[in-house]
Amino acid sequence: MRWHGNGRWVSAELNFIEALRQFATHPAARGLNDDAAVLEIGKARLILTHDSLVEGVHYLHSDPPESVAWKLLAVNLSDLAAKGGTPRGAMMSYTLLSDPEWDARFAAGLGAALSHFDVALLGGDTVSAPSRVLGLTLIGEASGPVPARSGAHSGDALFVTGVIGDAGLGLKIAQGLQGNAELLAAYQRPQPQLGAGALLASVVTAMMDVSDGLLIDAGRLAAASGLCAVIDLDAVPLSPAFREYAGETREARLRAATAGDDYQLLFTSALPLPPLPVPVTRIGKMTVGEGLILADHKGPVPLPEKLGWLHGLP
Amino acid sequence: MRWHGNGRWVSAELNFIEALRQFATHPAARGLNDDAAVLEIGKARLILTHDSLVEGVHYLHSDPPESVAWKLLAVNLSDLAAKGGTPRGAMMSYTLLSDPEWDARFAAGLGAALSHFDVALLGGDTVSAPSRVLGLTLIGEASGPVPARSGAHSGDALFVTGVIGDAGLGLKIAQGLQGNAELLAAYQRPQPQLGAGALLASVVTAMMDVSDGLLIDAGRLAAASGLCAVIDLDAVPLSPAFREYAGETREARLRAATAGDDYQLLFTSALPLPPLPVPVTRIGKMTVGEGLILADHKGPVPLPEKLGWLHGLP
Repeated sequence: MRWHGNGRWVSAELNFIEALRQFATHPAARGLNDDAAVLEIGKARLILTHDSLVEGVHYLHSDPPESVAWKLLAVNLSDLAAKGGTPRGAMMSYTLLSDPEWDARFAAGLGAALSHFDVALLGGDTVSAPSRVLGLTLIGEASGPVPARSGAHSGDALFVTGVIGDAGLGLKIAQGLQGNAELLAAYQRPQPQLGAGALLASVVTAMMDVSDGLLIDAGRLAAASGLCAVIDLDAVPLSPAFREYAGETREARLRAATAGDDYQLLFTSALPLPPLPVPVTRIGKMTVGEGLILADHKGPVPLPEKLGWLHGLP
Repeated sequence: MRWHGNGRWVSAELNFIEALRQFATHPAARGLNDDAAVLEIGKARLILTHDSLVEGVHYLHSDPPESVAWKLLAVNLSDLAAKGGTPRGAMMSYTLLSDPEWDARFAAGLGAALSHFDVALLGGDTVSAPSRVLGLTLIGEASGPVPARSGAHSGDALFVTGVIGDAGLGLKIAQGLQGNAELLAAYQRPQPQLGAGALLASVVTAMMDVSDGLLIDAGRLAAASGLCAVIDLDAVPLSPAFREYAGETREARLRAATAGDDYQLLFTSALPLPPLPVPVTRIGKMTVGEGLILADHKGPVPLPEKLGWLHGLP
């Protein structure tokens, strides 16, 4: 589940989700306030998530169809990773636009991505439509506890996997700026942290994926937990490619922390962490209060007006 | 699952589905050739289906948002009914188009439909998009055998529930022709046959829902089973409202049998049927061969060029 932020119609979207929340009262829905639904059937604990990609909103018309297919699967796997789940299968919704070459390249890319992540395509629907809206429901399973966004405690440390900001620069490169292939790949081929998520699920108090921007998503985790997130901007992990491209000034770090599309895991814990297949960085802590507090070595950092990516590609 | 027919891009769609079929080899996918996927997890037998509605393709711009919401749920429930399943929850994909009144009416209609059918909304995704593409993944569960389209035997009788053709006339009424509310409701508020489907699942050899037209869907059941469907056009059940509106000539009956949007169950069996909550009519039988053979009291009926609704609203 991802009733996520949206640039143009934020207020309309919030009203719509609030209307749905009135009747989405089944505990599996988690109040429409988490990355996924958690449905117990028989002795199985299913994790269900659905994310859509809209051309011109979530990806560029010029993006290769193969990478759009990769991304459609990867963004859903990232939600599943945040719940510690293992994928069991996918249902796809696909719009046909009289462009058989695009369709063929998408299908080839989807097959490669499914194979890479060992996910079965179970079914779906193909419709003709005036614009591309690609949807995927991922069905996963959890063998243990399924962390929510809402479980953080005051005093927990706040961590993030991998590096932040590469995908934001990758988008600029996809739009025509000069830049290296590593950054472009971070935008076009995000790597969901399934292995780390499964290992972390039993030791975190809260977990979610960073899809819309580190700051906006940290704010959501804090709000869901009824706490304040205190973030050390200097600790936000940047890649060598990011530093080379954008530097590591306060402005560059704010750019990384608000760009979105990172698909890293953001989580809180007071316990020692297990060995993980990806680097993990402690970027702050949770305290009593609400919202975000940001600082770096120079002192307090005013919150930027835009905390995350608002899904409106220029 | 519904990789279903499409008027404008039939060949492109078939090519695309064929490409997916190369890697959709998990048995749960049923070869992308059934109404739903059937996934065993733990001791549960999940039934998964996804159908989308595109404005101007599957419904009219002028249709009330409440009935679009009803239809989005009902068409998926109809797929589940054809597999004898019980609904467990739904994931929705929703496009926002800067029309808050439409959104509010849709949400109210969805809440009413979910309540009517006792289905939990578990989660989903809201995206801004240039056109409306509404998707729903339905998660159901089966307690017994899950019939496929492919299980019919030569000699089985072919049955259909309810009446055929009302929704096709209802579409004309929605488009402005005079007509009664019952026909309009058949188009705007289809009634999935969940009760009948659950009772039939253990006595049928094949079952599917009639969504694109009785003839085209009977042809699909026959093809999946490697048989020929012999249909008595005179036996196709018509409502009093249909007879009053369109008569019961051969032409009227062909119109009913090719209109689509009926959401009745089409099934084959050689066994006595259990008592059912809806009328059931024997409309033919399965024989060795392939395709469709159509006849009425005057003799053989040439197959119409168009066997079903091709999802291109005029």
